[in-house]
Amino acid sequence: MATAATGMKYKDRDDLLLMVFSPNTNIAGVFTSSATAAVSVQITKSVIENEAGRCLLVNAGNANAFTGIKGDKSAHLALSSLSKISGLPLNSLMMDSTGIIGEPLDATIICSHLDNLWRSKGSANWYKAAAAIKTTDTFAKASSKTIKFGEQKVHICAIAKGSGMIAPDMATMLGFIVTDAKINRSVLQEMLLEINKKSFNAITVDSDTSTNDMVILAATGGSNFSIDAGNSKADKFKSALQHVMIDLAHQIVKDGEGASKFVRINVKGAISDDSAHIIAKSIANSPLVKTAIAGEDANWGRIVMAAGKAGEPVERDKLTIRIGGVLVAENGQNSHSFKESMIKHHMKSTNILIDVDLKIQNGSTTVWTCDLTHDYITINTDYRS
Amino acid sequence: MATAATGMKYKDRDDLLLMVFSPNTNIAGVFTSSATAAVSVQITKSVIENEAGRCLLVNAGNANAFTGIKGDKSAHLALSSLSKISGLPLNSLMMDSTGIIGEPLDATIICSHLDNLWRSKGSANWYKAAAAIKTTDTFAKASSKTIKFGEQKVHICAIAKGSGMIAPDMATMLGFIVTDAKINRSVLQEMLLEINKKSFNAITVDSDTSTNDMVILAATGGSNFSIDAGNSKADKFKSALQHVMIDLAHQIVKDGEGASKFVRINVKGAISDDSAHIIAKSIANSPLVKTAIAGEDANWGRIVMAAGKAGEPVERDKLTIRIGGVLVAENGQNSHSFKESMIKHHMKSTNILIDVDLKIQNGSTTVWTCDLTHDYITINTDYRS
Repeated sequence: MATAATGMKYKDRDDLLLMVFSPNTNIAGVFTSSATAAVSVQITKSVIENEAGRCLLVNAGNANAFTGIKGDKSAHLALSSLSKISGLPLNSLMMDSTGIIGEPLDATIICSHLDNLWRSKGSANWYKAAAAIKTTDTFAKASSKTIKFGEQKVHICAIAKGSGMIAPDMATMLGFIVTDAKINRSVLQEMLLEINKKSFNAITVDSDTSTNDMVILAATGGSNFSIDAGNSKADKFKSALQHVMIDLAHQIVKDGEGASKFVRINVKGAISDDSAHIIAKSIANSPLVKTAIAGEDANWGRIVMAAGKAGEPVERDKLTIRIGGVLVAENGQNSHSFKESMIKHHMKSTNILIDVDLKIQNGSTTVWTCDLTHDYITINTDYRS
Repeated sequence: MATAATGMKYKDRDDLLLMVFSPNTNIAGVFTSSATAAVSVQITKSVIENEAGRCLLVNAGNANAFTGIKGDKSAHLALSSLSKISGLPLNSLMMDSTGIIGEPLDATIICSHLDNLWRSKGSANWYKAAAAIKTTDTFAKASSKTIKFGEQKVHICAIAKGSGMIAPDMATMLGFIVTDAKINRSVLQEMLLEINKKSFNAITVDSDTSTNDMVILAATGGSNFSIDAGNSKADKFKSALQHVMIDLAHQIVKDGEGASKFVRINVKGAISDDSAHIIAKSIANSPLVKTAIAGEDANWGRIVMAAGKAGEPVERDKLTIRIGGVLVAENGQNSHSFKESMIKHHMKSTNILIDVDLKIQNGSTTVWTCDLTHDYITINTDYRS
């Protein structure tokens, strides 16, 4: 990896990242479901589908989204230039852009840094890489895990960025995960899809889905240790991968724009896992629930409202709600045993736990979100101007 | 009508409203689609379905929602008492409650005012009635229209309340419309459903759908002027009714919690009216769009994002966006002719206009919303405690 500072939007910090993969790397990816996805999403998706990915270029500060044919040309110009410098074929080059939507991206600025970037590859560590892809993030996000199979070690290293416009529908705004395990592409893609559902797709900051979301999982095979589907090795690897992806997803929520509280919402007893997920997201996205949490107010009536509006089966008289483990509502009303004083301390803490039991069937899910504060308003009324 | 001050939650103001209808009144209603709807919604819905409605009791400050069997009993106690005092059968009495969710409603306080309320019926005008049903509303909301058919006059008078938890799915939190026209119930219900779609169902303050939403349309027949379906009289009446309902819907948005701007969003060129509506609501509910408007920033990239995440067909290179009538984006990128200075004045005004043309087919819609400001956060972090 290598990083550079173009000065395009940010001063005195890196904003360009190059990742180069060894020849036999297999790469899986999940991408935004936005109908107005950025050109970089389209390019990278097609490279990954063709199993041709060798190199990834990431720029922060300009999303190059909704920049029309001009934006398409900018992306292609940067990648053509990189192709010449690296000697790698154009169809092996991936790109990801993050930042403001709708402003033309000046590719010549990027191009002027590519020669140096290519020559200095290997100079950036994971922390430097994570720092180079930040936009409104207040800290760099990275996670890693080493898995031991007897004598053999396999590594997973990953970085991510994201703070606002976070309600990933297929992936979140920029997550890059690399392992030195040897895993074939279809197994890799399946693992990514499965764990993405429980990690990046289970977080929301503000219910707004970005045009540029993507998560890439690359298996370089550098350890020469093979992992196939459906055996105990695969399970061990998947559990480590899940650890890394959930860790990164949590870091994004904790760095959510204006966030002062990290909120875990467990929903069980739904008619299906999908139904539980819709209800949990409805609670997690409700501005009234989020402002109540910001106000350290155990206003569970708003949780009832948000569960009720989700459009999924909920039976008033079965619904049970716990906050911080304390039963606050059951049998369609407030709990007889409940007193506000019992959860006052919990509401003042930075980690809030909400458990909802619908008591209908066995569908369950967990999602994570943050509160909605004055700082979110301040950040987003000021962001562009 | 008559009003009273119970002091249950608010001091020195009316919080109880009684509306009594003449014997041959026909009543139509639309209700929240929430799965956790309040008991008052269930009662009123059933009275209207049985075509038995004679009297409506409204209390402000306590929604009596998610208060379990205790809450059901409170509502029935109040209505039984009203039935004794008025001599009207219990199954002709409707109720609506608005305010905090989950707190038990003390019906005895209401009961102690019913005798006076019944005896003073006729003492409250529409303004007094509108003021008595407010919660976080900063002004009383009323609208009226007189329609002339030759010598004959027909009147429509209406009140509403609502400020937060406003994303009505079937109706909005309390709207009461009365006309002295003679209209049979099925025609009345059809008119209400049709116009509700374009008025109360086309507004959103914060994407949160209440447990207590209801809009009731009563035709007393007092003018002795009959209106049937599908003729020019009906069209004239419907157009007046639409005027009144849209007026009230706008008042709710203008009084949206913390609102400083009133925003109209027109979407056309969608594959259907429903698709246009989903896209318009996605823009209207996006916290990033709403904070940009609060910041007087023409950040149209966020409009693109919100259109793209809606899950409906949108083609990037056809999408056209106008703000304040000025073309800001077309052909999948920013407009060549556009300069920020062209809409600076518009962004500083209190009425913001956003036009989105998808250029795919002919589906269109209009929705109204407000911006998202620090005041929304202040109001909702403080509301209960």
